[in-house]
Amino acid sequence: MTGESLTRRLVAEALGTAFLLATVIGSGIMGERLAGGNVALALLGNTLPTGAILVVLILILGPVSGAHFNPAVSTAFALRGAISWRLTAMYVAGQILGGLLGVWAAHLMFDLPLLQVAAKARFGPGQWFAEFIATFGLLLTIFGCVARAPQAVAYAVGLYITAAYWFTASTSFANPAVTLARSLSDTFSGIAPSGVLPFVAAQMFGAIAASVLARWLWPASAGR
Amino acid sequence: MTGESLTRRLVAEALGTAFLLATVIGSGIMGERLAGGNVALALLGNTLPTGAILVVLILILGPVSGAHFNPAVSTAFALRGAISWRLTAMYVAGQILGGLLGVWAAHLMFDLPLLQVAAKARFGPGQWFAEFIATFGLLLTIFGCVARAPQAVAYAVGLYITAAYWFTASTSFANPAVTLARSLSDTFSGIAPSGVLPFVAAQMFGAIAASVLARWLWPASAGR
Amino acid sequence: MTGESLTRRLVAEALGTAFLLATVIGSGIMGERLAGGNVALALLGNTLPTGAILVVLILILGPVSGAHFNPAVSTAFALRGAISWRLTAMYVAGQILGGLLGVWAAHLMFDLPLLQVAAKARFGPGQWFAEFIATFGLLLTIFGCVARAPQAVAYAVGLYITAAYWFTASTSFANPAVTLARSLSDTFSGIAPSGVLPFVAAQMFGAIAASVLARWLWPASAGR
Amino acid sequence: MTGESLTRRLVAEALGTAFLLATVIGSGIMGERLAGGNVALALLGNTLPTGAILVVLILILGPVSGAHFNPAVSTAFALRGAISWRLTAMYVAGQILGGLLGVWAAHLMFDLPLLQVAAKARFGPGQWFAEFIATFGLLLTIFGCVARAPQAVAYAVGLYITAAYWFTASTSFANPAVTLARSLSDTFSGIAPSGVLPFVAAQMFGAIAASVLARWLWPASAGR
Repeated sequence: MTGESLTRRLVAEALGTAFLLATVIGSGIMGERLAGGNVALALLGNTLPTGAILVVLILILGPVSGAHFNPAVSTAFALRGAISWRLTAMYVAGQILGGLLGVWAAHLMFDLPLLQVAAKARFGPGQWFAEFIATFGLLLTIFGCVARAPQAVAYAVGLYITAAYWFTASTSFANPAVTLARSLSDTFSGIAPSGVLPFVAAQMFGAIAASVLARWLWPASAGR
Repeated sequence: MTGESLTRRLVAEALGTAFLLATVIGSGIMGERLAGGNVALALLGNTLPTGAILVVLILILGPVSGAHFNPAVSTAFALRGAISWRLTAMYVAGQILGGLLGVWAAHLMFDLPLLQVAAKARFGPGQWFAEFIATFGLLLTIFGCVARAPQAVAYAVGLYITAAYWFTASTSFANPAVTLARSLSDTFSGIAPSGVLPFVAAQMFGAIAASVLARWLWPASAGR
Repeated sequence: MTGESLTRRLVAEALGTAFLLATVIGSGIMGERLAGGNVALALLGNTLPTGAILVVLILILGPVSGAHFNPAVSTAFALRGAISWRLTAMYVAGQILGGLLGVWAAHLMFDLPLLQVAAKARFGPGQWFAEFIATFGLLLTIFGCVARAPQAVAYAVGLYITAAYWFTASTSFANPAVTLARSLSDTFSGIAPSGVLPFVAAQMFGAIAASVLARWLWPASAGR
Repeated sequence: MTGESLTRRLVAEALGTAFLLATVIGSGIMGERLAGGNVALALLGNTLPTGAILVVLILILGPVSGAHFNPAVSTAFALRGAISWRLTAMYVAGQILGGLLGVWAAHLMFDLPLLQVAAKARFGPGQWFAEFIATFGLLLTIFGCVARAPQAVAYAVGLYITAAYWFTASTSFANPAVTLARSLSDTFSGIAPSGVLPFVAAQMFGAIAASVLARWLWPASAGR
């Protein structure tokens, strides 16, 4: 990754987040349209594509930008000094922009109005604790793989999100850029804007907690 | 792959495309027959086999012919000079022939008339934009893996298509030979002939756009 | 694998085929009991476990016996001179015995009578052609991986069967020992005894055709 | 793994078992809530996350503690002299504690009372034989991979449990710490306390049987 031009990195972050959101929103719409009211089936049709596309995006864009696609991930890497805060800010901007483009691409494909605001309320302590846990686990997955199983990181992140869609009460947003973008889609995967800030806060707490634990659990001096 | 005889390559392209189409059509029939009217379940029974067989076919036939099974892929490789236009034309012929054989094999297995014409309309700007995005993403997946994660290409393509069946409004044909072949099956996966040309055009635009972006995003001089 | 004692090999073949059949029959019963009459859902609950257990069994028993678990596979390896016909006969005996034990283990777990005879008719040219294709593809998968991607054989076989459950009209038995054993279970995965012989014949034709094609398609002298 | 501090190992066992239980209980609740009464769909929503999270947890925590998360696994490793009985006792304590924390985390996320006792009866010879088989197979998977395919152990365990949820009549607890923890959740994945002891006994018998067979099947002197 070293030596990559800044533009290439930022395009990779935006492109990856765009495909991630197109998948989250698009497969949510597809699942809900086809599932005949069975929400478990719709969620399954939302889960498998999201997990699958994450593996692909990390495989192809990881070597370019690190494949964060997630402000919580970029912040956690900044916290451990792996990237500068300046680059972090640019990554976050690219992720937010990419997320919006992804949502709009999904709306275009499914013949829906581009600009929407989500109405689905996702609120309350259970949801917030779920987002804390979801992001805590995601960051442990990333840090653990980076430290001890770097070749498996793409598969591990895809599998983690596949699991987290179901074991967290919030279906695991675990990503501030994704949360923001999903507030602009009044579809299966949407979240009403009032829910965005507490979700993001819970995600950042989860990321910070995971950073602290990971530093102790996988110290640089140990290893396989 | 160098040193493979031309015949072996063409047989590999035809054989792989035949198995791909037998899977797309066959699992579509099976899914629709068993799903009791729930289209999400039928699509799931169509998605998982298609993604799985792609991994297998690329693993075993990739070393023989490159495992394109897709005129858009062959064209994109020709555009970057990886194969000659003469070979591309022969690959495309093999892919189209293989696709037809695969459709007919599926019809034979399920006791259906060999020769059919699809009635299912797949038409309109949303569908065409979906095919553009689907093929754009597929080619990015392939070029990104070839450049930065060559050992993962079979898995990445299988996972990408698994995702794209759900996140694109068209269920991701992303392949002119597949599109043509599917117009000859009046089953779950069919497409009425009037829809073929715009789908193929959208796919070719997507492949060209991805070729341009990929050349810049993963230049030969960089790397891991 | 060389140097393994004969007993160990035969136990591995019997043990693996037993777990394979316990999975095919057991997950079929579980799927049918829970699916509330939706056959697609029952087949999905039958497919994913079968594909998954195959990966596991080939990973752990491949280094002991080659992990054939299938008389058609053993015969195909004998045809190309990889194992002796004497060993093939012993393998087939172990596979058949293991298959029976697996069926009975499933019946015991689900509180069903041990001894049963299947009533589900699986008969006719479409079904037989499906078994030919299913076994033809399975053997191409195995031979292709052995020749060009040996580290992937376990994953490829699991994925192939995952696909073949849905794209072949017969749900891909593709294995004479499995076919015989499934005739002794009057459950979701059963096959009436009258259907066994034509299925086995179609499977053996498929295996032989694949052997011939594989020898030409992946010659020992070529490679990656 | 050698050289890891004891605290780190115990935290890894507790953390991993906590995430495992949060997934088993959480995805069970999610599946049941969304499946509209279709138990096969609920079990599918319970199976895929459990298999997926196991892969992740073994990838990231295996290098720290060995990633047992299971008293039957720790006991089996102690039986073959791989870890001391003293460490085994501490691992089991960590696993039980982690399991409880995981159950409570799931209840918190889904806004359910923390303290519950399961009412779902899981009892009878079929269930107990199923737990024997489930744990027997799990330990063969682990021992076989450790001996012959160590790089695949995380994937193999995830796939094995994915299969075992469906092919065993008990949905494969295969883990005394998991069994105990699940008795404290009156949700989809619960087990009435009266069922715990026979399940644990069957699991320990399965683990011991697998240990004996594995020592003979994959002797240290042989190999690939």
